[in-house]
Amino acid sequence: MKGEFEFIDGIRRTFPVPDGITGIGDDCAVIPQTDGWETLVSTDMLVEGVHFLLEDISPYQLGWKSAAVNFSDIAAMGGTPSGSFLAIAVPRTTGAGWLEEFLHGYRDISGKYGFPLLGGDTSSSPDRVSICVTVLGKAPAGTSLKRSSARPGDLICVTGFTGDSAAGLDAVLKGRPREGEVPYLIDRHYLPHPRIAEGMSLARTDGVHAMMDISDGIGSDIRHIMEESGVGAEIDVDRLPLSDELRAYCRRFGADPLDFALNGGEDYELLFTAGPQASIDVPHTVIGQITENRGLVWKGSDRDFNGFRHF
Amino acid sequence: MKGEFEFIDGIRRTFPVPDGITGIGDDCAVIPQTDGWETLVSTDMLVEGVHFLLEDISPYQLGWKSAAVNFSDIAAMGGTPSGSFLAIAVPRTTGAGWLEEFLHGYRDISGKYGFPLLGGDTSSSPDRVSICVTVLGKAPAGTSLKRSSARPGDLICVTGFTGDSAAGLDAVLKGRPREGEVPYLIDRHYLPHPRIAEGMSLARTDGVHAMMDISDGIGSDIRHIMEESGVGAEIDVDRLPLSDELRAYCRRFGADPLDFALNGGEDYELLFTAGPQASIDVPHTVIGQITENRGLVWKGSDRDFNGFRHF
Repeated sequence: MKGEFEFIDGIRRTFPVPDGITGIGDDCAVIPQTDGWETLVSTDMLVEGVHFLLEDISPYQLGWKSAAVNFSDIAAMGGTPSGSFLAIAVPRTTGAGWLEEFLHGYRDISGKYGFPLLGGDTSSSPDRVSICVTVLGKAPAGTSLKRSSARPGDLICVTGFTGDSAAGLDAVLKGRPREGEVPYLIDRHYLPHPRIAEGMSLARTDGVHAMMDISDGIGSDIRHIMEESGVGAEIDVDRLPLSDELRAYCRRFGADPLDFALNGGEDYELLFTAGPQASIDVPHTVIGQITENRGLVWKGSDRDFNGFRHF
Repeated sequence: MKGEFEFIDGIRRTFPVPDGITGIGDDCAVIPQTDGWETLVSTDMLVEGVHFLLEDISPYQLGWKSAAVNFSDIAAMGGTPSGSFLAIAVPRTTGAGWLEEFLHGYRDISGKYGFPLLGGDTSSSPDRVSICVTVLGKAPAGTSLKRSSARPGDLICVTGFTGDSAAGLDAVLKGRPREGEVPYLIDRHYLPHPRIAEGMSLARTDGVHAMMDISDGIGSDIRHIMEESGVGAEIDVDRLPLSDELRAYCRRFGADPLDFALNGGEDYELLFTAGPQASIDVPHTVIGQITENRGLVWKGSDRDFNGFRHF
């Protein structure tokens, strides 16, 4: 749901940002408060035909996912949930039952991760569903984990598995029979679980420096950390965490799991860097190292890995 | 940009709202903080073909207005500006110059009213521009003016003039020559000025009880205050503040200024109620009175006045 580089650059150039406020170009904006906390805010728009197709995703899944991708931005800073705001434009031809099911999915994930819905806006739309979620979180002052804090020598780490979501999308697009590992992978695509608890734990862990969520694919996302931190990175593609389900899917259908893991997006796992001495409680996999040299080096493969961009 | 009654009712029914948080169904959600302030948040979505037509509005005007309608929600609570977040989806066929002009308008009003742009999201859209602005403000704890605080005996007051924006839209739709009072009215439609300073002053004035902004037209908006406060209202339509420009336009083109003032929307003036003893510094017009009886009585006219709704 990212990819707005030119736009963000434009904002940085033309909009003065007040002192103390950071995070433009990060997963959330970070607004200092006077009570020892900082407020985290992120907003994302999802448009039918670009981010989802109504034929492919159920209203329940769409409600869940619209929230999930935003909650994940709070997780990516290590923030505590505060709440969310939902704006949605729906064609008049869409039945009332559709919106009810959408809200059902939105409500279920909101309850599960502790984000109350605090407000919203609905309007009609001529022909497509548009959804905009704004999410608020908070963190003790100065503890939010930004993309800009990676240091040479840091280990590059990732929670969970990479590539499952992209394989799930592949399964939908190619009409794979919904059996074996396929339903699991499709769920990973449509019902992602933001890493709220893991993010909060990592933000409280000494030696964890930079963090973001994986929304465009590691191959693209790691470049954000590199760019914001002014560092390089070396990634060992053979160490990427691949689920048994992803491997099974790729064996069955003759695909390369690394394509999904690196170039596919929307895993909503956490990508973070930590000093080698950091004592990390959250389950994770070390996939590489931050380097002083500003380049990106892929070990274990000579292919060119590029994330995808929306805009 | 309001009109989401069914949706808000649905949220109220199905989404538990945490203790202390109010404002769902108001112009902003009000989130108490621990430092003696409360945070105000509002979000609105604007969809091409529903809220605006690209043939009619310049990108500069659209950028300005997208921000204005949201800033007005902060004004409506009497809040101090904190900042805004902008999400926008634009078709690939829209030139880069369009987005630049849009941001120009957005930046100008943001600077004028002290709302820094704190973050955003852009994506492509298949065919229509969608815009979602989320705005943050703050107020000393307990001072935000809600729709629910009107009391029988309160005077009903309005800032500025009513109907200018609707007449401006009428002029655009009917292709009136852009001369005389027409350019002024069109500007009132496309470049509205949120009443930030006036709202802040009213929130600090003893005896001012309920407030909202006029987005759908007084005929519709007063009903929100009645409903949320559990009161009635009597409005003297002959006292509605009508600008010389509106009167001139209506004389020239044979229209009734009351149609614009009552049924037209998007004035973004403040509609508030205040005890008869309140000493109000902000220029305003008294247009009626809050009554115990729950009905709405129009004096000076026997027509049925209904605001318009988007959804």
